[in-house]
Amino acid sequence: MYRTHTCGELRIENAGNEVTLAGWVQRVRDLGAMTFVDLRDRYGITQLVVDENTDKAVADALEELGREFVIQAKGTVRERQSKNKNIPTGEVEIALSEINVLSPAELPPFTIQDDTDGGDDLRMKYRYLDLRRDVVRENLVLRSKMAHAVRNYLNSKDFIETETPVLIKSTPEGARDFIVPSRMNEGQFYALPQSPQTFKQLLMIAGFDRYYQIVKCFRDEDLRADRQPEFTQIDCEMSFVEQKDVLEMFEGLTRHMFKETLNVEVDEFPWMPYAEAMEKYGSDKPDTRFEMLINDITETVKGKDFVVFDSAEYIGAICAKGCAEYTRKQLDGLTNWVKRPQIGAKGLVYVKCNEDGTFKSSVDKFYSQDDLKAWAEKTGAEAGDLILVMSGDKKHMLDALGELRLEMGKQLGLRDKNVFKPLWVVDFPLLEWDEESKRFYAMHHPFTSPKPEDIELMDTDPGKVRANAYDLVINGVEIGGGSVRIFDSELQSKMFSLLGFTKEEAEAQFGFLMKAFKFGAPPHAGIAFGFDRLVSLFAGLDTIRDVIAFPKNNAGRDVMIDSPSAVAEAQLDELNLKLNLKEKK
Amino acid sequence: MYRTHTCGELRIENAGNEVTLAGWVQRVRDLGAMTFVDLRDRYGITQLVVDENTDKAVADALEELGREFVIQAKGTVRERQSKNKNIPTGEVEIALSEINVLSPAELPPFTIQDDTDGGDDLRMKYRYLDLRRDVVRENLVLRSKMAHAVRNYLNSKDFIETETPVLIKSTPEGARDFIVPSRMNEGQFYALPQSPQTFKQLLMIAGFDRYYQIVKCFRDEDLRADRQPEFTQIDCEMSFVEQKDVLEMFEGLTRHMFKETLNVEVDEFPWMPYAEAMEKYGSDKPDTRFEMLINDITETVKGKDFVVFDSAEYIGAICAKGCAEYTRKQLDGLTNWVKRPQIGAKGLVYVKCNEDGTFKSSVDKFYSQDDLKAWAEKTGAEAGDLILVMSGDKKHMLDALGELRLEMGKQLGLRDKNVFKPLWVVDFPLLEWDEESKRFYAMHHPFTSPKPEDIELMDTDPGKVRANAYDLVINGVEIGGGSVRIFDSELQSKMFSLLGFTKEEAEAQFGFLMKAFKFGAPPHAGIAFGFDRLVSLFAGLDTIRDVIAFPKNNAGRDVMIDSPSAVAEAQLDELNLKLNLKEKK
Repeated sequence: MYRTHTCGELRIENAGNEVTLAGWVQRVRDLGAMTFVDLRDRYGITQLVVDENTDKAVADALEELGREFVIQAKGTVRERQSKNKNIPTGEVEIALSEINVLSPAELPPFTIQDDTDGGDDLRMKYRYLDLRRDVVRENLVLRSKMAHAVRNYLNSKDFIETETPVLIKSTPEGARDFIVPSRMNEGQFYALPQSPQTFKQLLMIAGFDRYYQIVKCFRDEDLRADRQPEFTQIDCEMSFVEQKDVLEMFEGLTRHMFKETLNVEVDEFPWMPYAEAMEKYGSDKPDTRFEMLINDITETVKGKDFVVFDSAEYIGAICAKGCAEYTRKQLDGLTNWVKRPQIGAKGLVYVKCNEDGTFKSSVDKFYSQDDLKAWAEKTGAEAGDLILVMSGDKKHMLDALGELRLEMGKQLGLRDKNVFKPLWVVDFPLLEWDEESKRFYAMHHPFTSPKPEDIELMDTDPGKVRANAYDLVINGVEIGGGSVRIFDSELQSKMFSLLGFTKEEAEAQFGFLMKAFKFGAPPHAGIAFGFDRLVSLFAGLDTIRDVIAFPKNNAGRDVMIDSPSAVAEAQLDELNLKLNLKEKK
Repeated sequence: MYRTHTCGELRIENAGNEVTLAGWVQRVRDLGAMTFVDLRDRYGITQLVVDENTDKAVADALEELGREFVIQAKGTVRERQSKNKNIPTGEVEIALSEINVLSPAELPPFTIQDDTDGGDDLRMKYRYLDLRRDVVRENLVLRSKMAHAVRNYLNSKDFIETETPVLIKSTPEGARDFIVPSRMNEGQFYALPQSPQTFKQLLMIAGFDRYYQIVKCFRDEDLRADRQPEFTQIDCEMSFVEQKDVLEMFEGLTRHMFKETLNVEVDEFPWMPYAEAMEKYGSDKPDTRFEMLINDITETVKGKDFVVFDSAEYIGAICAKGCAEYTRKQLDGLTNWVKRPQIGAKGLVYVKCNEDGTFKSSVDKFYSQDDLKAWAEKTGAEAGDLILVMSGDKKHMLDALGELRLEMGKQLGLRDKNVFKPLWVVDFPLLEWDEESKRFYAMHHPFTSPKPEDIELMDTDPGKVRANAYDLVINGVEIGGGSVRIFDSELQSKMFSLLGFTKEEAEAQFGFLMKAFKFGAPPHAGIAFGFDRLVSLFAGLDTIRDVIAFPKNNAGRDVMIDSPSAVAEAQLDELNLKLNLKEKK
């Protein structure tokens, strides 16, 4: 061992001990006769000190040190004169007798401290230096702890952690697969899994009863802000259960994680039907840290010759508590905000509920004080509140009001990162109609079971069929999703045919699963949590990138190792492939 | 929940309880008035019973059941008349009041029992049925338990479990990479990791101090008996440690696994230098469950005009205890065994040490009784023993004697699967010379540190340089391997140049690592365990395939899902690729 203690370990009780530490030089302060070094490792920072008058050789050696040098330091622990109450080692220092440079360091391209001066690109390129910063490393430590909490909980509930294959088979449904050419099987390809969905169902058919895995999954999608081509799921499946059993089990898991890693007790998780979430929050992932629900005021506001409202399919409103004093400028700001292409609303109507009981609105021309009072009653607005109204196509407006609600919640400081409000969104539609391709898509995935009472609608009105599907939503983030599965090959065939698969296509892609259903399949259900998002939520971060040790950028590149990269032609030749680059237009 | 209890849970104390079970029909026995069903799930088997005279409807329903039907069964627990002492539920049975078929089953293609009638191919194709067999599932349960034991131990030692990327960069060194075409980066490819080696070193440079991961790795090699294209490693790395520290830590881990999962206490792990392992066991992975060491008798046997020996570089012998009575046929069998191409020896000389103190050998023509007595002394043979001798090229003969030793150990029952003998093999050579390509290869990998005392040999006699590298060997199986790493960019450059890399190649492949070394790298060392092999050893199996839920066959195919498979031309086109199939010769 190069050390007897870590840099976070020594306390006043160790005074007098001869110790050896090793770590990185955080900074050197030369105060005339005395020179101080802050020595850092993962566990903390310890102050080293040498008096030039008593130990010139060591003092001289310190002169040579630069930031981020790796050194070994020997000396005696003693009480510090000016204590540092901010760190656990702040009462002691090491009076140095010897130092050895283990590894010198060039000046790092950015400072290794919580508030670094490095920009994103530079920190990605030198990710190993960025990871030295406490604030970054702590996210990864939290991740490790959360994974362990998951495993402890699920193991205690008789789940078997089972690895499923990474080299699997490409399927055209869903997002794009990454594919892997096979050398031994000429002209054929493996695919990397988007999820171990079919394998976990096969494990249920195999009688494993309870399965989980913390597992890498892959999607070759165009990367938006918070996507990574490889991401991690907590993937789970249970047999002989109904929806209620699954939700109870994984509510338990989630509470366990909160308790074990953040020491947070969360309330019981409410269940909210998808339809309610859409109507009241304008989103299937409602942020329930604050109210400000969407109110349908269509019937209340129509018929007063305001043509914008009278011609609209839907008029909805939210009530922003205590915002009656919003200025013209603030209101114009909100109007512009909803008119941005991302929201795409035509405009925003407001009603201020004045403290004196009167109302001031942007549509005073069309509506009387009594009319506006009715609006206030409908939206629960009281004196001092601000009502914000949008009108148009219902689906679009719910979405827009949902976004506006989140924005107002942010402006009012109602989205506290230290408050956690989980809920289950349930009763999702089974299918989604796509206008462009004129076909249904599975809202969750093709193995999701319809609600038994809705099965007959599959023939008559497939769009109306609700699924036994559920999402775990926390603070407006979709953390996990799952469903009760189909376990009957005929129902599964029907589902594939609704999704536009021919019999042959279904057979070629999922024949093995349909076959497996014929040998005695138990009722089963499961869930997958997006582990990156979950960690990022727990860490109070806005992006998953910060909870991944070596993330890729928005072009799917790892700029640190410079990957992907070209490969030798011989390597392609062995795989029976040729590049076929298009000419740039 | 479809059940109140599992099929492994009910005991005599539950007599009188109304219960609901769910599971698979193991068998139905219709004994006239009484019908019995063995209902099976992962947790056990419970007997269901119905009396046709009292409950005709249920009895009729049982008539319809076949093997592997999934049913739900309701009834009352009662004491069984003829108890089954072999199973924990053997004192009770369920007097049925109702059954529901949840899922009928076609007749499975092989029997779902420990001694199945299904051949390998059939069981691979219907792997989900094979996994229903207790003997197969138990291996996977053991695997899950071992993984958890690993994590508990390493977490308790401050290791951070950190996920490293799966989409990385192809490197020409070592085994062939699987590559993954990138759609977003035209004409470029990711590679799947053969190990997270460089990433774990970067994590040490990042100050993570202690890292581990149970992680999938990939090698596109021609598959021999016990290889899989994807396999799992327990991958670990530590900073500020020397070889001794690493071996102590991971000896602790290994003992913990033995204790936690098999309740086995193993002896302290001896350290054996590579050179000694080769000389005494003819292998760098010695099976130390038994002695029968190889003896160099070259000097003892030369000079007696037996031209075969006199012309040989090396003559070695093993002593098989108590085998003096081996028959002519047995000895011929051994001779043929060593002459097989896999061993490639020219022949086998034997000396029987008779009980009366005389010797009988196959070379009596050349050697006197006194001569043979000297052989016996040299090899430690006593009355009743058999000495087996081979001669030729030293390297080849050590290998052949090592194989013969294992064969004799097997014949004598000395390789008990319930006995575990771990050891560390240390002091491996740094480099291996390859005659064909006339260059050195890294014996371990290019990041392995030479022993400090051997560094100057790197310039003068590179083949002689020993590495700070070590393998964990248990019962003749290499379970893990690792090394103290180079953490100095100059020494690393020198290593690359010994391996025949040009400066440009080294820079292109590992520039990011060499660069990282320049920003303050701590001394570090690590190890990777082959998790599949470790589980297979613990389970007493001969192949890793049985400890993998969904293994691939020797052609790298998953015959259950029929993968790899062709992909659509459009998909290749998006990836800027074209098939380039060779004509079959």
